[in-house]
Amino acid sequence: MKRILMIFLTVLLIGSSSVYAKYKIDHLEPAFWWTGMKNTSLQLLIHGENIADLKPEVNYAGVSIMKVSRVSNENYLFVDLKLSEITKAGSFDILFKKGAKTILKYKYQLLERKEGSAERLSYTPADVMYLITPDRFANGNMANDNVEGLPEGLDREQKDGRHGGDIQGIIDHLDYISDMGFTSIWSTPLLENNQTSYSYHGYAITNYYQIDPRFGTNEDYCKFSKQARKKGIGIIMDIVLNHCGSEHWWMKDLPSMDWINNEGEFTSCTHKRTTVQDQYASKEDLKQFSDGWFVESMPDLNQRNEFMSKYLIQNTIWWIEYADLYGLRVDTYPYSDSEFLIEWTRRILEEYPNLNIVGEEWSTNPAVVSYWQKGKENKNGYVSNLPSLMDFPLQNALVEGLTEEDTWGTGLIKLYEILVNDVQYPNPNNLVIFPDNHDMARVFNQLNKDYDLYRMAMTYVLTMRGIPQIYYGTEVLANSDAGGDHGLLRMDFPGGWEGDEVNAFTGKGMSTQEKEAQDFLKKLLNWRKTSTVIHKGKLMHYTPEHGIYSYFRYTDKGKVMVILNKNTESVHLQTERYHEMLKGNETAKDIISGKIVQLNQGIEVPARSAIILEIK
Amino acid sequence: MKRILMIFLTVLLIGSSSVYAKYKIDHLEPAFWWTGMKNTSLQLLIHGENIADLKPEVNYAGVSIMKVSRVSNENYLFVDLKLSEITKAGSFDILFKKGAKTILKYKYQLLERKEGSAERLSYTPADVMYLITPDRFANGNMANDNVEGLPEGLDREQKDGRHGGDIQGIIDHLDYISDMGFTSIWSTPLLENNQTSYSYHGYAITNYYQIDPRFGTNEDYCKFSKQARKKGIGIIMDIVLNHCGSEHWWMKDLPSMDWINNEGEFTSCTHKRTTVQDQYASKEDLKQFSDGWFVESMPDLNQRNEFMSKYLIQNTIWWIEYADLYGLRVDTYPYSDSEFLIEWTRRILEEYPNLNIVGEEWSTNPAVVSYWQKGKENKNGYVSNLPSLMDFPLQNALVEGLTEEDTWGTGLIKLYEILVNDVQYPNPNNLVIFPDNHDMARVFNQLNKDYDLYRMAMTYVLTMRGIPQIYYGTEVLANSDAGGDHGLLRMDFPGGWEGDEVNAFTGKGMSTQEKEAQDFLKKLLNWRKTSTVIHKGKLMHYTPEHGIYSYFRYTDKGKVMVILNKNTESVHLQTERYHEMLKGNETAKDIISGKIVQLNQGIEVPARSAIILEIK
Repeated sequence: MKRILMIFLTVLLIGSSSVYAKYKIDHLEPAFWWTGMKNTSLQLLIHGENIADLKPEVNYAGVSIMKVSRVSNENYLFVDLKLSEITKAGSFDILFKKGAKTILKYKYQLLERKEGSAERLSYTPADVMYLITPDRFANGNMANDNVEGLPEGLDREQKDGRHGGDIQGIIDHLDYISDMGFTSIWSTPLLENNQTSYSYHGYAITNYYQIDPRFGTNEDYCKFSKQARKKGIGIIMDIVLNHCGSEHWWMKDLPSMDWINNEGEFTSCTHKRTTVQDQYASKEDLKQFSDGWFVESMPDLNQRNEFMSKYLIQNTIWWIEYADLYGLRVDTYPYSDSEFLIEWTRRILEEYPNLNIVGEEWSTNPAVVSYWQKGKENKNGYVSNLPSLMDFPLQNALVEGLTEEDTWGTGLIKLYEILVNDVQYPNPNNLVIFPDNHDMARVFNQLNKDYDLYRMAMTYVLTMRGIPQIYYGTEVLANSDAGGDHGLLRMDFPGGWEGDEVNAFTGKGMSTQEKEAQDFLKKLLNWRKTSTVIHKGKLMHYTPEHGIYSYFRYTDKGKVMVILNKNTESVHLQTERYHEMLKGNETAKDIISGKIVQLNQGIEVPARSAIILEIK
Repeated sequence: MKRILMIFLTVLLIGSSSVYAKYKIDHLEPAFWWTGMKNTSLQLLIHGENIADLKPEVNYAGVSIMKVSRVSNENYLFVDLKLSEITKAGSFDILFKKGAKTILKYKYQLLERKEGSAERLSYTPADVMYLITPDRFANGNMANDNVEGLPEGLDREQKDGRHGGDIQGIIDHLDYISDMGFTSIWSTPLLENNQTSYSYHGYAITNYYQIDPRFGTNEDYCKFSKQARKKGIGIIMDIVLNHCGSEHWWMKDLPSMDWINNEGEFTSCTHKRTTVQDQYASKEDLKQFSDGWFVESMPDLNQRNEFMSKYLIQNTIWWIEYADLYGLRVDTYPYSDSEFLIEWTRRILEEYPNLNIVGEEWSTNPAVVSYWQKGKENKNGYVSNLPSLMDFPLQNALVEGLTEEDTWGTGLIKLYEILVNDVQYPNPNNLVIFPDNHDMARVFNQLNKDYDLYRMAMTYVLTMRGIPQIYYGTEVLANSDAGGDHGLLRMDFPGGWEGDEVNAFTGKGMSTQEKEAQDFLKKLLNWRKTSTVIHKGKLMHYTPEHGIYSYFRYTDKGKVMVILNKNTESVHLQTERYHEMLKGNETAKDIISGKIVQLNQGIEVPARSAIILEIK
């Protein structure tokens, strides 16, 4: 691990080693920072033997030490620097002194912020996210399949092992992603997970400032972001605030007993997510939910500790600035301390007011999900700053709506009725919608491997209000036949490995249906890319009747009509019912088939299909 | 029908019949009114041949005619009277003149309002409602089983026929109801349903001012209310605002084309209830939902017609005042015009500020139900005045919670998670909660005829926040084995008919389990009657663990702990987890067994049971 840290740390041990050898710096984070930030405070975490015994000093115009904090473990120092608006980029030494003597020295860098960094734009309903589990997408660099110092190496045979996918693999296929019509990539976490096993997923971070060497370097991540930008693709980082990996370096030498919840000892989280917003919940349950560990290998960070809170905030800002991020996704959002989440989002948005951040609150209850969206007036007074949430309720309704028989209370009526809940969200248009993700069976399987339903589901997700997200492989009909197990549904993307018999990047070995699905989505995504009606349009939908569900997206300038037909017969749909939307319009264009439809003659909707009509 | 109306109408035909015979009054409603109302306006609907040709006159101190309205049908007159605060009770003639000549005369009565009428109290969480379908409860008067002029007579063999139950039958068993521990009775509608068939349920009203003679007389209804009051039981009337029966007298001679929605012609309601609150709904769908008829035999009243609106408002006030009602239940609440509902509730509450009114919005989505509760801040600006709603979401969660296997997302977790939705209700304590009702399978059947689960469900309903409602017969384990059909689940109460082999009033012929259920509920209801902790207490509940769900109701003065154990083994529950609630308490009393429990020794919860511990 030291090997990695040496990239950042330039520590100079001064004087006779026999006298001063008991002092050292193992970690100083963040290793560098920027001038021109809105918030001019910066807190350094410094870790090293007996460091608390020393006194830091700085001599650089526009930088002063405001406060030095010591905690119960004398191997830590927290140093609050104050910059100012006029502080210039450059480097300076931080001296660590004992009395008048300088014992250690650290060369600190202040970089110039990129122009327009604060005003950066972020993902909106004009975007479609491509969600990638990097270990399973493409192995672009076989040299990093096994890395010294990181015990878990390549093992493609194991469902929970590392398969070798990496950042270079994604970079290699940016053209594919771009050609398909995606405009952003959310990859599951790429930071170091130096766990002994099950490290591929990335959610057990052992170094918050370091890309996992098996995925690449920090520089690779920047290159990835830069090259993606050139193709009109923004990078969305997956942020893990709730927990770290059990092999994180600080677990071996905790700053204080309250750095990790439950004093660093494992107690299981109840996973009862409603507890945090339930007016009837007991304090005991709240504590067990909020302070319990997600799993034993993921210690629960105590964000009520002010140093931890600042550490996490700065870490996120650091990555946005460093890797020129397009937006954020936050893992297990409600599991973190609620008050901390207010502060974290406030600070991020203070630096990047337009940045979009989507949180994961896995509940199918819109009341529970909407609790967290910025602008929600919660009964308990909780004021969230989070702009976006994953729309799990809509995903659930989509699958039930398509697979269930249509009755009074099942089937399409669920698709219709789920949307009445949109009043609960301050901004339903900013929700991220999806047919599946990395934690559930592939949508093709959820739809009982019914290709017609799959096409309907994809049509729905790409024309409904919100920001669509599609999981890698779902565009080529990836299916989790092998089982719902996480390791299995996160299967290797065909063509991502040398010698793959099937290659979805080139089409080699794909089944007709897989190819058809891919072509269909490519067409749909590329059409969506330029359809401002889908990006900005209002929504009007019609009650399901006789197995048909239909809705419009519309602006002053255009309309799109979507019709889902679950019937096993084609339906000739009379258009009188839609007079509010269709009056004044005579023709429409089926955006998949390209056919022109005469609206006054009714609309022919093939059996078990979805059609999209563009009306201008 | 005329026979009935003659009770109210005293019409005097003056002069030579050969000259004036073309004028008459068939209906004048309301037939009498009261002085001392907050709102001093009163609108009379007068129906009779050519009545619009005449001019009404009144000569009585404190009463004046403000406005006379004529509509397209000349057989109607709407007369707006203005009373004042000083108007005295008494009677006066309304003269109907043609020129100077008085053609018809109607003796109108103004009664004195009962003292304290306006300030009457209503049902609260201290109450438990007994819901009765009167035709199926007890036949107290065989003389009214068949009534001349009302074609549908007694037919006990038909599930959808009239079985002969009546008001006298309820009066006869008030002691039973009172002894059981119920404090109010909601009976399904008792007003005349002179339909050719399927009239027993009461929801197809053909005369808004007349008790159905097969149930009794208006006087019987008053007697019922009076005798019930003496036993501490309040009467809750079931109000039907959305539709009338197709055989209502006005259907044969409509005042105007807009009296009934869709110009008096049947078009089916879509029953898509979310449409009325869905921001994305089309106007077309809204119209089809709101203006469509519930069923063909129930014409949909157009409450946007101001005369209809006033008619319905006055009718409700009339019954509250006339029969000294304790509260209201409103059928198919969202089906009526939304703006009318605001006005209707406003006017009722203007006269009776404490009156409780519970509306039926059959949705399992708390967002949809809570839309209607008074105090809810709806996104579309809709401001409802309705104090209470039927808690269908809780009923659904209760059945799923008890019957489903306990997993991550099923079983008891649903009982826990449903309550997070309470933040959506301005006043969750004022919701009416129930294990079943007249429109669904009996709870015993919903719980797969599992007696243990039945006891748990009844314990839950009688200790949870809200106002419990129990359907007649559910206390003796009524089951809808015969089928979920409405006619079958509304079975005759055993003992309500002469010669019944089983008599649940006396215990004759009951099975051991039925008797046990009845005794259990009697004990529970009578305990609840005096338990202010249940009436007024706050709620704290604990996340389900290992098949156990537990909660507390508490005030400054006392606590009640409820534990549901779904396990097939008894559980010895350690109490440390409950320290927030139990600190300072050493003993508790099991209110069913009477046993004293030493809390520091843990609590023994028998297999598949619910226990209620009173802690003082």
